Amino acid sequence: MTMTIDPVDLARALIAAPSVTPATGAVFDVLEAALAPLGFTVERFIDGIEPDGPVENLLAIRAGSGPIHFGFAGHLDVVPPGVGWTGDAFAPEIRGDLLYGRGAVDMKGSIAAFVAAAAATPADAGTVSLIITGDEEGPAIFGTRALMEHMDARGVKPDMIVVGEPTSVNRLGDMVKIGRRGSVNIWIDVPGTQGHVAYPHLADNPIPKLVRILAAIDTVTLDEGTAWFQPSNIEFTDLEVGNGATNVIPASARARLSIRFNDQQKGADLVAMVERIAQDVEPAAKVIGKISGEAFLTPPGALSSLVAEAIRAETGIEADMSTTGGTSDARFLHALCPVVEFGPTNATMHKLDEAVAVEDLHTLTAIYRGILDRAFR
Amino acid sequence: MTMTIDPVDLARALIAAPSVTPATGAVFDVLEAALAPLGFTVERFIDGIEPDGPVENLLAIRAGSGPIHFGFAGHLDVVPPGVGWTGDAFAPEIRGDLLYGRGAVDMKGSIAAFVAAAAATPADAGTVSLIITGDEEGPAIFGTRALMEHMDARGVKPDMIVVGEPTSVNRLGDMVKIGRRGSVNIWIDVPGTQGHVAYPHLADNPIPKLVRILAAIDTVTLDEGTAWFQPSNIEFTDLEVGNGATNVIPASARARLSIRFNDQQKGADLVAMVERIAQDVEPAAKVIGKISGEAFLTPPGALSSLVAEAIRAETGIEADMSTTGGTSDARFLHALCPVVEFGPTNATMHKLDEAVAVEDLHTLTAIYRGILDRAFR
Repeated sequence: MTMTIDPVDLARALIAAPSVTPATGAVFDVLEAALAPLGFTVERFIDGIEPDGPVENLLAIRAGSGPIHFGFAGHLDVVPPGVGWTGDAFAPEIRGDLLYGRGAVDMKGSIAAFVAAAAATPADAGTVSLIITGDEEGPAIFGTRALMEHMDARGVKPDMIVVGEPTSVNRLGDMVKIGRRGSVNIWIDVPGTQGHVAYPHLADNPIPKLVRILAAIDTVTLDEGTAWFQPSNIEFTDLEVGNGATNVIPASARARLSIRFNDQQKGADLVAMVERIAQDVEPAAKVIGKISGEAFLTPPGALSSLVAEAIRAETGIEADMSTTGGTSDARFLHALCPVVEFGPTNATMHKLDEAVAVEDLHTLTAIYRGILDRAFR
Repeated sequence: MTMTIDPVDLARALIAAPSVTPATGAVFDVLEAALAPLGFTVERFIDGIEPDGPVENLLAIRAGSGPIHFGFAGHLDVVPPGVGWTGDAFAPEIRGDLLYGRGAVDMKGSIAAFVAAAAATPADAGTVSLIITGDEEGPAIFGTRALMEHMDARGVKPDMIVVGEPTSVNRLGDMVKIGRRGSVNIWIDVPGTQGHVAYPHLADNPIPKLVRILAAIDTVTLDEGTAWFQPSNIEFTDLEVGNGATNVIPASARARLSIRFNDQQKGADLVAMVERIAQDVEPAAKVIGKISGEAFLTPPGALSSLVAEAIRAETGIEADMSTTGGTSDARFLHALCPVVEFGPTNATMHKLDEAVAVEDLHTLTAIYRGILDRAFR
C-alpha cells in the first residue's frame, strides 16, 4: 500500500514553522504528523543547553521486509532570514514558478520530497529511516552526532545514506556530492618583548618572526589533488597585532589560517606541520588548531551509481560526482556507511528570497522515489 | 652688571604653573617675569586651534655688543602627569636631594638653569636668545616651527643653539646629543577580493602578498651606520586585517613600519623604497609615509667642543657625543645653525615622580654659564 503526499504542501507546512538554528518543537511536529500515517515509528529527543542548544533531533524508521536499510538524512533548522525579503520569510508563498520561504532549498524542500517519495514506496520494499536534526547550520554539537549515538544505542545502522543537501548547481540533477573536503582553522601566536622603536635592542619584535613563519607556510604544497578531490589549500584568513602606538614594538603577533583539505591529509597532521614550521622560527610560538571535520570520500560505486541512474531516468542529466564546497553533516554520517548528497539547486540557499522551483520539488520526489526503488531492487 | 637667580626657585615656580601640552598662559608669565629684569625683550604669541593648539611661544632676546648670537631652545609644555605620584605633580617639593614635579627634568629645570646662567653672564658679552615653545611634547605643528617663522620674519638668526633636553644618562654631563636619527612611519595597504575559503579561485587573498612584501623588506639592510650614527633600522609595528570570520578570505590587509634612520637616508627615499617593494608584489598596493623628522648631525666641531669643555671644567666628565634616542625640536632648529642638545639626567622623564637633583640644577647652571663664556670668548 502507498499513500500520496504532495511535496509542495508539506514543504509549505515545514517552512511555515519558523526554525532558526538551533530548532525544536513545531517544525518537528509537522514532520512527525506527516510520517506517522506512513507507518514510521518516530522518536524525538532534545539535547544540549544554551548557547549550543537546546537542539531537537528526530529518528523515524519504517521497517520493511527486504534486507536493505536506506537512510535519508537532513536538517529542519534554517539560517536566520536576514532583512530585505520581498515577502515574509516564514510565510511560504508561490509566485510564478517558485515557492519562496526560508528553508525552501536548504532543506525543508528536500525533506518534503523525500517524505513524498517514501509515501509512494511500498512499505515492505525495504527499511527506510529519516535522520533529521535541528542543528546543522549551527555548531552541530548536539545535532547529527547525538542522533548517531542514539542510533548506535538502538542498533540502528543503515546500509547507505543520502543526505538531502542542495547540491545541484544550475539544474536539478547536475551535481551529486560523493565526499567533502576536511576543514581546520589554525591560530599562530608569536610572543615577543614590547619596547620603544628607538631602542630595538631592548625589545624583541614578534612581527618579523610571524612573517618568516607565514612566508614558509606560503611555500608549502600539500598535495596535487586526487581523481576526486581538488588539491588541499591553505588560506591565511587574519593577521592581528592591535598596536595603536607608532613608536612601540608590540609584545605579540597573531595569524589565523584556514586549510580545506582532501582525503590525503588529516587535520591533526596539518596542525602539527604548522606547529613545526612556526617553532622552527620561534620555539615559543603557540599553535592551536580546531578541526571542523576530516575529509571523506564515498568512492564512486553502487550508491553513487544508483543515484546517478535515478537522476538520469527522470531528467536525462548526467550528474557530476563532486567533492567541492563546504562541509555538511555527511562528514559525521560517513562513519556509518556509504554516504552521498543530493538535493535541489543551491543558488538561493542562505540568501534573501530563498526559493525552490515547484516543478523541481515534484521532480526531486520522483528522483528520490527512483533511488529508493533502485536501492531495494 | 649681572644678577643672581636661584635656578631651584625658578624651577619650582615654573613647575607650579601646570602646562600639560599644548601650553599657554601662566607658565609663560612666570618665565617672562624672570627674563624681563635681566634685560630681555620678550615676545609672546599664540598660534593654532584645537586639537593641535592653541600653543603659546616665547622669543626673548638680549642684545650684546659682541658679534656672537647664542640661542637656547626649549619647551615649557609637559606630558600629562599620570596617576600614582607620591605627591602632587604640580606642587614642586624637595625631598632628600631631589626636586620633584612634572617637568623637573623635561625641561623646566634646564630652562631655569639657563636663565640663571644668563643672569650671571654680563649682558654686553654677546647676544642671548631663548626660543621657548608650548608644544614640543604634542604634535609640534604650532610650536618651534612657528617660532622659526617668527624669527625669520624678524631677521633673528643665532650662530649656534643649545637645546636643553635632558640628554644626560647616569650622571649630569655624561652625554651630549650632536644629532638625531630621522623617523618615518609607513603604512602598506594591500587590496584583495573577499570570498569564501572553500572557493579560493573566486577570491584574491591579500595576506600572502603582504607576507611577501614584508619578507622582502625584512631582508633590506639600509646602511651600516656611520662614525656618529647607528645603522638605520626598520621595525614592523602593526599588522591589521580585522577579519572575524574563519571561513572568509579578507578584502584587504595592512601593515605599519617605523624606520629610524641616520643621515645617509632621506625619509622620502625610504617611503619610495617601500612602495617599490610593495608594488613589485602587488601593483595595486598603497603605501603612505609620514615623516616625523629627517636625520641631522652637527658634526663634532666648535660648538660641541665648547659644550664638552664646559662640562669637563665643572664635572671632570668626558661627555659622550651621541645621536641615539628619539626626536626633539633640534630636528627643526638645525636648519638655522649648528645645534647640540645638553641637559639633566633623563631617568625619570615622562615617568611618575619625575625629579631632578637640586645639586644638578646648580651644576647645570654653572655648565651653561661656562658654555656662554666660551661662546662669547
